Amino acid sequence: MRLRLDLSYDGTAFSGWANQPGHRTVQGEIEAAIMMILRLPEPVPLTVAGRTDAGVHARGQVAHVDLDDLDPLILQRRLRRLLPHDIRVRGVSIAPEGFDARFTALERQYSYRIVDGQTGPDPLVRHTVVRWQRRLDVDRMNAAAGHLLGMHDFAAFCRRREGATTIRTLRELHTERLDDTLVTTVRADAFCHSMVRALMGVLVAVGVGRFAPEWATDVLSNVERDSRVTVMPAHGLVLEGVVYPDAAGLAARAAASRRHREQA
Amino acid sequence: MRLRLDLSYDGTAFSGWANQPGHRTVQGEIEAAIMMILRLPEPVPLTVAGRTDAGVHARGQVAHVDLDDLDPLILQRRLRRLLPHDIRVRGVSIAPEGFDARFTALERQYSYRIVDGQTGPDPLVRHTVVRWQRRLDVDRMNAAAGHLLGMHDFAAFCRRREGATTIRTLRELHTERLDDTLVTTVRADAFCHSMVRALMGVLVAVGVGRFAPEWATDVLSNVERDSRVTVMPAHGLVLEGVVYPDAAGLAARAAASRRHREQA
Repeated sequence: MRLRLDLSYDGTAFSGWANQPGHRTVQGEIEAAIMMILRLPEPVPLTVAGRTDAGVHARGQVAHVDLDDLDPLILQRRLRRLLPHDIRVRGVSIAPEGFDARFTALERQYSYRIVDGQTGPDPLVRHTVVRWQRRLDVDRMNAAAGHLLGMHDFAAFCRRREGATTIRTLRELHTERLDDTLVTTVRADAFCHSMVRALMGVLVAVGVGRFAPEWATDVLSNVERDSRVTVMPAHGLVLEGVVYPDAAGLAARAAASRRHREQA
Repeated sequence: MRLRLDLSYDGTAFSGWANQPGHRTVQGEIEAAIMMILRLPEPVPLTVAGRTDAGVHARGQVAHVDLDDLDPLILQRRLRRLLPHDIRVRGVSIAPEGFDARFTALERQYSYRIVDGQTGPDPLVRHTVVRWQRRLDVDRMNAAAGHLLGMHDFAAFCRRREGATTIRTLRELHTERLDDTLVTTVRADAFCHSMVRALMGVLVAVGVGRFAPEWATDVLSNVERDSRVTVMPAHGLVLEGVVYPDAAGLAARAAASRRHREQA
């Protein structure tokens, strides 16, 4: 029986999503809680849509776990009681046939927040907003973003992983300003490691005037990580949501996604 | 020379605004920073519009301090560098003639946030939102609030202080729901100690159905603190702002306010 878990978390006190011995991780906390609730001899591994790095937050993370038959609402209630306050279980449900939190996801959406005013961020939201000392020009940032949209090899923005493609389709990369706060919305079929934070590094470098918007094209043409690109801090990044196909599209999507990722 | 300080802070790690030996307080941090910046032999006391309790936050706190002549923008810049990230100096300016952060304030505005859904608060805002297990009826809460508006003796909602009046004019007490989150806006000329959190206790008791909305009138008729009223947790409360008269009205206001508060 496959269960879908909808999750939110404050990434501040976690060494990211993925299990790491000796570190507090979101995956580790949830797997330990499920093991305890169901009195299992060992943890059952979770599969996740977006493996967020240390310090990255999530409002709309999705994971799945395969367990023996049980009432998902009972597991949901017990997880809510047992998990710490920096993880919130938004829902536990029986996954439709063919669902895979990672391989059937059609799209991931992230947001990134920067405050560029002299006063700095509101203390009440400071753990989700990056402070930038110099004023950023949103029009220039959006002009640079325009050069990055579409299907490209994003190798220049990624930490290379053996045998994995870095071709992605970037569907949205748009920044809006509300007073001192800039919110960038980023949507793609998938992201490689640190890709959103490297995209933000390009937008910020253009936004402060260090490079022209067309520089984004230059960066994109690199086949390796571009050392001129700053990877922006983790705490401004939030995984906002994941989109899945309806039941009919699930099986086809899982097969296509595996082919695309595993064959470089 | 009197300076006006506009401040925001995350109250989580403070034992409230007011100085207390051996405790970390907002007043203590700012007074220590000013003393260090100006190389003063001892701290110069700040006067504040709203003496927030331990755990209460502020977006629009106002204080004043009397110092020898200096450039307020230099003090502002140095305070921003020196103060910890849970205090933000929104501005330092020369106060107009007759200004007193406490005694010339015409109105204080607070907000209070409760989440009453099964899933609990978004982890990213959990330190500013109180979780309530039972569903709250906003219409009942607003009906109860209607009985409390206007000028009354709010002794039933206050911790008594010798020689101080508990007569206040409550101008707004209104709750709105957005999904699972209830935001209550509270405005009055001033508040006595723990008054907003006790008002929230009445609204919540009516909202869950334990009392009829008219019970608020019954509570209000007490001349002492009413033990049936729960003082709601501090971390849901934010001082949003303080209203002052224009320059012409300042002197008159200071005199009237002192008379009103000090003569019970």
